[in-house]
Order: sequence, then structure tokens, then C-alpha cells
Amino acid sequence: MKKIIFLIPFSLLIFSCNKNIEKKENSNLLSIAEKTDSTNIKTIFNSALTEGKSYEWLRDLTKNVGGRLSGSPEAQKAVEWGEKLMKEVGLDSVWLQPVMVPHWVRGEKEVATYTTNGNQKNVPICALGFSVATPNSGVLAKVIEVKSLEEAKALGNKMEGKIVFFNRPFDDTLINTFRAYGGCVDQRVRGAAICGEFGAKGVIVRSMTNSIDDYPHTGTMSYGDLPIEKHIPTAAISSKAANILSDDLKVNPNLKFYFKQSCKTLPDAPSFNVVGEIKGEKTPENIFVVGGHLDSWDLGEGAHDDGTGIVQSLEVAYLFKKNNIKPKNTIRIVFFMNEENGTRGAKKYAELATLNKENHIGGLESDAGGHTPRGFSIDANSVNTELLQSWKKLLSPYGLHDLDKGGSGADISPLKGENVTLVGYRPDSQRYFDYHHTSRDTFDKVNKRELVLGSASMASIVYLMDKYLYSDSPVKL
Amino acid sequence: MKKIIFLIPFSLLIFSCNKNIEKKENSNLLSIAEKTDSTNIKTIFNSALTEGKSYEWLRDLTKNVGGRLSGSPEAQKAVEWGEKLMKEVGLDSVWLQPVMVPHWVRGEKEVATYTTNGNQKNVPICALGFSVATPNSGVLAKVIEVKSLEEAKALGNKMEGKIVFFNRPFDDTLINTFRAYGGCVDQRVRGAAICGEFGAKGVIVRSMTNSIDDYPHTGTMSYGDLPIEKHIPTAAISSKAANILSDDLKVNPNLKFYFKQSCKTLPDAPSFNVVGEIKGEKTPENIFVVGGHLDSWDLGEGAHDDGTGIVQSLEVAYLFKKNNIKPKNTIRIVFFMNEENGTRGAKKYAELATLNKENHIGGLESDAGGHTPRGFSIDANSVNTELLQSWKKLLSPYGLHDLDKGGSGADISPLKGENVTLVGYRPDSQRYFDYHHTSRDTFDKVNKRELVLGSASMASIVYLMDKYLYSDSPVKL
Repeated sequence: MKKIIFLIPFSLLIFSCNKNIEKKENSNLLSIAEKTDSTNIKTIFNSALTEGKSYEWLRDLTKNVGGRLSGSPEAQKAVEWGEKLMKEVGLDSVWLQPVMVPHWVRGEKEVATYTTNGNQKNVPICALGFSVATPNSGVLAKVIEVKSLEEAKALGNKMEGKIVFFNRPFDDTLINTFRAYGGCVDQRVRGAAICGEFGAKGVIVRSMTNSIDDYPHTGTMSYGDLPIEKHIPTAAISSKAANILSDDLKVNPNLKFYFKQSCKTLPDAPSFNVVGEIKGEKTPENIFVVGGHLDSWDLGEGAHDDGTGIVQSLEVAYLFKKNNIKPKNTIRIVFFMNEENGTRGAKKYAELATLNKENHIGGLESDAGGHTPRGFSIDANSVNTELLQSWKKLLSPYGLHDLDKGGSGADISPLKGENVTLVGYRPDSQRYFDYHHTSRDTFDKVNKRELVLGSASMASIVYLMDKYLYSDSPVKL
Repeated sequence: MKKIIFLIPFSLLIFSCNKNIEKKENSNLLSIAEKTDSTNIKTIFNSALTEGKSYEWLRDLTKNVGGRLSGSPEAQKAVEWGEKLMKEVGLDSVWLQPVMVPHWVRGEKEVATYTTNGNQKNVPICALGFSVATPNSGVLAKVIEVKSLEEAKALGNKMEGKIVFFNRPFDDTLINTFRAYGGCVDQRVRGAAICGEFGAKGVIVRSMTNSIDDYPHTGTMSYGDLPIEKHIPTAAISSKAANILSDDLKVNPNLKFYFKQSCKTLPDAPSFNVVGEIKGEKTPENIFVVGGHLDSWDLGEGAHDDGTGIVQSLEVAYLFKKNNIKPKNTIRIVFFMNEENGTRGAKKYAELATLNKENHIGGLESDAGGHTPRGFSIDANSVNTELLQSWKKLLSPYGLHDLDKGGSGADISPLKGENVTLVGYRPDSQRYFDYHHTSRDTFDKVNKRELVLGSASMASIVYLMDKYLYSDSPVKL
């Protein structure tokens, strides 16, 4: 109450009487708008929580299609699944965008072992995406443990004939586990390129997780510009095995580590982005993209990464249609192909958008798992960032408090531009790296309420962005 | 930027120069306090995330003690476990508070079945706490389905000789699942007392959960003042079975439901609250209680309910000691006995506090599961409520945004008083009723990071409350 009394005399001093009346009227208008928005958002959430379909869609995708790495028969099955489902939901139009994608295959299950103090230890490993195979007989070599790319580089030729073991763990003190991932993943992506240069025989990398367990985490790697004859095999080992190996190396620095994998990269394969849209009522030429990625790693079922993003994105359209929300702009749902190892789908989508002179006004990506909602990360100019942040009171009743500036996602970021507002959905991150890129990323790890609350959160921000973001005179609530 | 420019000239106009300088100095002072607090809270979180013990304590409690219903040998084992652990953590003093507790035992596994359209269906059920047994031959009767206590009462004598089936589901549109629980649990607690009055042969109640699954949820019930000869057996049936039974009753309203249970209430048994404390440095006579409940239902391992609250409460003390935080007031950790069916431990604790003329200034309870932190619920006078809410900026970096007025918890609420500030820890509620009071409430459902983030959240608010709440001139940040 104090604040209001405090401000009124000031405005009387500064502003003209007319200006003040105008302000008051505007504020009344805003209250009505706010009330309408609050009611509509509540309707969206109620509908998601009682009639949501995403959980059953996800069950179907994970159980009947399963893991779906780019170029695989499962990825093709997923494309057909997605096209069929978009049509069932009744989008105004649905089509496929052809795109050539990398085609890497894992081959036989990897094997790793070493003997120390007379004990043979079997090590849970998995090849990293794009890694070459070991020779048929595998690789057997002494191990040098390092904690960073810099430390590896400094070894230079000392690593010749050795296996380099990258073992920098996640920083557990970072509350957002994606930041911990960002602080470690260079080891997985670039480790083999650096060590291949200096003649190492192979690279093993500690799995990207906070958890100490027996599950190796795969993920993409790159040899960069390294000539093909210097490409060396690289694999992830489980976090628990990494700790044990590190301890064993302290006692027995000369132990020899053995691993064998038969993965290979085949010629690029044809695939598709799956696209569907609800045509805008007023400015259909303005397009707002909502999406996730349809491909996944092969070890699990691609549930949290990114089956949840796929089904939530489609549920945004489902909730709009179910509740008769007619968007001003065109809302386009995209199931991007090949986010995991190449982002070819994202590049193709952006390329076609430019080619077809499409006007993309914004986008929302869900690729951070299907856990309980926390908010959104905003990649936009400062005016639009502030506008989105002004919706906090409408969103916070649903646990959506985080509305910070930050990246959106790998699939929509090629659409970035001064007047394009990109947003990343940000659920709670604590459990995500327990499952990410492992055999544990399965349907049973997804909670139905958390999933549909995510769909509703996404639909709500799309509703607000569609309504306010590109009006002639953006209204701050 | 605009806002700042707007306010500065106004303060120059209104306030005297002195006042303005004073304000500025005060704001500098606050900044320093704020910085210290922010640093100390960060230290608490870092310590919990890297050196926290609660996860291993919980493993020990759930796996080596297990479910521990009041009066059981396991509850006694839990008391010994708690006393030993408090001493190991190095609390200044540790003791047991004797308390007599109810002693209800489940007996043999319950059985329920019915036949419809020639199909025999086995129904997952469990007796409710304090229910009487069925006769040895079980109960076989026709079923009347109702949705509320009022609907049951209106049936009156029509329910004579029948089984009454309470089947009002959770309201899925409530974002906080505890509110949905609060809207349904009267069926479980009072259903049998009402139907016993009118001569029903038994009561079955839909399990208290949002989830549709095969796990019956036990929980306490009461016959109230009903004379003993009118006590009828009552059990929970799984939510999925409730849906199927409801459908079957529509087709075949005369189907007969059979159930058998052999539970009974034995004479009260001796037990204990486990208490330990860190003596306050300045005002040791002021006591701040931190606790959860040590007893649990017998079906699972009492992991989320309330093993997590127990280990988090002790971890508050552990984090204070580990980081050399010396509280002004005495911080007392209490493992309350018998929250689930009687709250005798809570009553005894409050009774002794009065008897011993102890000065309780506040308390914090953790009994809402071990999921990712969301905030605290505040039961205090308006001045202290506002003070706690003013710490939002210190707590929000850790996902602690919810600081609303509300209840604290069943075990500390008997300490309520005008100048006693009670707080309930509020983690995310979405998954809680998937496990609550079922065989699924086991260690594997608890995530280590979510658990220790809870400990750190609790330690942080205890740190702030100890520092600011009862100082002579409370400082708002």
C-alpha cells in the first residue's frame, strides 16, 4: 500500500493530468488482459493435466520405435510415426523435409578390460558417435590419465602408443547440471582429435554425468581436420569405472587397458524433418516454430532425450486446437532430424526458410528432458526479453520462475536474428544426466504429470508470445 | 535503467539530505550482510553437494532397518540407529524421549477378489492403519460406490450389509499434489466410521494418488467415537482397480466383492523420540527445532516418507558443524516417533517443552518427500513472515522461489505460538503420491542431488533464521 501512495503524488508532480488519466486507463485495460490471460493459461493447464496425450504418445514412440539414431531403420520408422501422429492431431498441413544425414553404426557390443594385482576387471564402455573401430584384435596399451585438453596437449609425443584417459568429473557444485555438462564435454568432443595428432592409440573418456554408476554415456565426437590415418578409436567409460581405474593407476601405473569396438561411419543416408502447422488467423505469413528432435542415441529409448520434447511440442498444437485457441501467427511444429550427431535437420530447416523467404518471428525448443517445469531461457533482443520477463506473475503459479537470458536450443538457434525471439524450455535439471545418452533413458523414467506440465508450460508461453510479441504496440503486463 | 533515473530525483525532492545519506549507508550495510549471507549459503550448498552424507544415511536406514511402523521391532531398531548416528555426527548432546505409541499390526497379506461376467479378478488391496480385521472367512457383499462422505451419509440404512466403495479421485488440475491429497483423504480417514454407524459390512477406499497403477496406498483411519461393535474392516484398493471396479459395477451392479485381512491393534508400546542438539553460542536457552519423523508405514522402506526428512534434518547439523557455523540459538534435531498413526511423539515433545519451560523460538519440518527443492511454507506472524520472504533473492538461485504462508508440519505444529516461527520444507510435489504409503516408497526412488539440495536448502534457512529472526532489530535484506 505504501508504494502506491508514494508513487501517485510523484506522478502528479511530473506528468500532466491527461497523461495520468491515460496511464490509469491503460492500467485498467491491462488488468482485463491479465485476467483473460490468466484464465486462458489455467484452461491450458487443466486441459493438459486431464486430457493430455503426450504420455501415451511417448509410450508409443519409446516402446514401439525405440532408440532412433540418424540413418537407422528406427529413425525412418520415427519419421513415419511423427507424420501419422501430426495428421491425427489435425494440423492444417503436414509435410516432410528431405535431408541427408550422417549414418554411424555402433556394431557389436563394445568390450573393455584390464588386469591389476591379479584381478581382471571388466569395464562398462560404449563407443562415441563417429568414432572409428579398433582393429579386430582391439587396442591394448598403457594408460595416461589427464584432466583436460590442455594437459593432454602438453603431453605431446609422450602419449604415443598409449591410451589417453580423460577423467575430469562434473562440477557437482553447479546447481544447473547443464552447466556442469558444458564444463566437461570438450573432453568427449575433442579428446580423440588432439590425441590422434600425437600418435595415441586410443582415447577413453569419463562419462558425462553427476551420478557415480555403471552406465557409460555415449555422445558425439569429432576428429576435426585430422587426416583420416590419424583417427583413433574413442569410447566413454562409466563414472564408477573411471574412479576405479584412476585409483588402480595410482597403484599400478603400468597396467594395460584393452578395448574393442566395431563401429563405423557409412555413407550419408536420406531422412526427413517432420513438419506440421496451424495456420495463423491474422498474419499467417509470420511463423513461430515449436520443436524438439526426433532422432536419439541408440543405447536407450530416447525418452528424455528427446522423446519428451517431441511429444510436448505436438501437445502445444493439440492444446491450442482442443481449447479452440486461434493463433494470430502460424504455429509450426517441427520434429527435427539428426540433432545428436550433425544437426543436419536444423541446418536444412533454416536453409529452406531462407530459400522460401519465410518470415520466422520466433521459436521454442524443448530438449532438456521431461522433468518438472522451472521456466524458460530467453534468446532475444532486450525489449522482447523484458516483455517475456514481465509475464512472470502469469507463469509463476505453475512453478515457472526462471526467465533468464540464455540459449534456446541447437535446432532453432540457426533461426537467430535481431527480431527473432527464441526460447528454450527449462525443466528441472537434477536427474537429467542420470539418463542422458545411456541405456537408462527409457519411458519409465518419465513422470506423466511432469511431462504434461511441460506441455502446458510450453503452450502457455506460445500463447503469450503469439498474442503480444509482435503486436504493433507491445503491451507490458 | 529508466526506472533508476526516475526514482533518484524523487527521493531528492522528498527526503532531507541527511535522510538520504542515512539510507545510502544503511543500504551499504545491508549489501555487506547480504554478501556474507550469500557467500555462506553458497558454502553450505557446495558442502552438501560434495561432502553430503544424507544419501548414504538414507541407504542405511531404508536397506538395513526398512519399514518401521510405530511399535514394531524395526521402529525400535530405527531409534537405536538414530541415536548412534546423531552421536557420530558429534552433536553436543543426544538423548531419547520415552513415549508410548499405538501398536497396530497388518498380519497376513490381504486378499480381495470378485467375479464378473465369469471372470475372477484379483484386486490389489491393503488394510488401513487401525482397521479391524475381517472375520477369518473374510467379507463378501454387494458394493455401493460413492464419491463423498456426504453421499455415504445420505445412503443411511441402504448400506446395511453392503461394502461401501469410496471412489473420489484426486483433482489432477491442482498443481500442488498435496492439495489434491487434502481434498480426498477424508474418505480414507472417516469413511469406515460413517459406514460402520449404518451397518455396512466393510469399506474400501480408492488409493490416494494421481497415478493410475496397481499399488494400494495405506494410511491411517479412525473410528472416532463409534462403539467397538460397529467397527468394520476397511482397506485401500489401487487406483487402477478402483477404475475397473467402477466400470464393472456399471455393467453388473450386483457383483459381490470379497476381501480378507487379519490386522489388529495391540496394546500401546514403549518407544522414543530421538533428540540431539548443537548448543547456541549466545542465547542457548532459545531453541530452534529441525525435524522429520522416524516411523514409517510398513509396506515400503519409508524412503520419501519420511526417511528423507530424517537424514536432511541431521544433515543440517552436519553442515553447520562441517562449515564451522556457530548458531546463536540452540539448534535441536528431532526424529519424531509415530507421525503416521497418532503423532504421539510430537505431542510428547511439546508436552515436555512446556513442562521444562523451554523457550522454542521456531522450527523447520521436512515431511513432504526428498524431491527437488521449491521453497518453504511459512506459519508465523506477519512481521516474521515478511522477513522470511525478504530473503527470496538469497534463496532463489537455488530454485527456492516458493515462500508462501501455510502450514509447517504435523510434528512441529504443536509448538505453534504468536512468536514462534514455524516453517515447512516444500520440495516439488509431482512424484510424491506415486510412492506415498506404498510398497514403492523405496531408496531407489530418491535422487542423491535432489536429497542433498534439500538438506542445503534447509540448512540455509536455519542459518538465516538463527541469525536474523530474533535479533533485537531484525534486518530486512
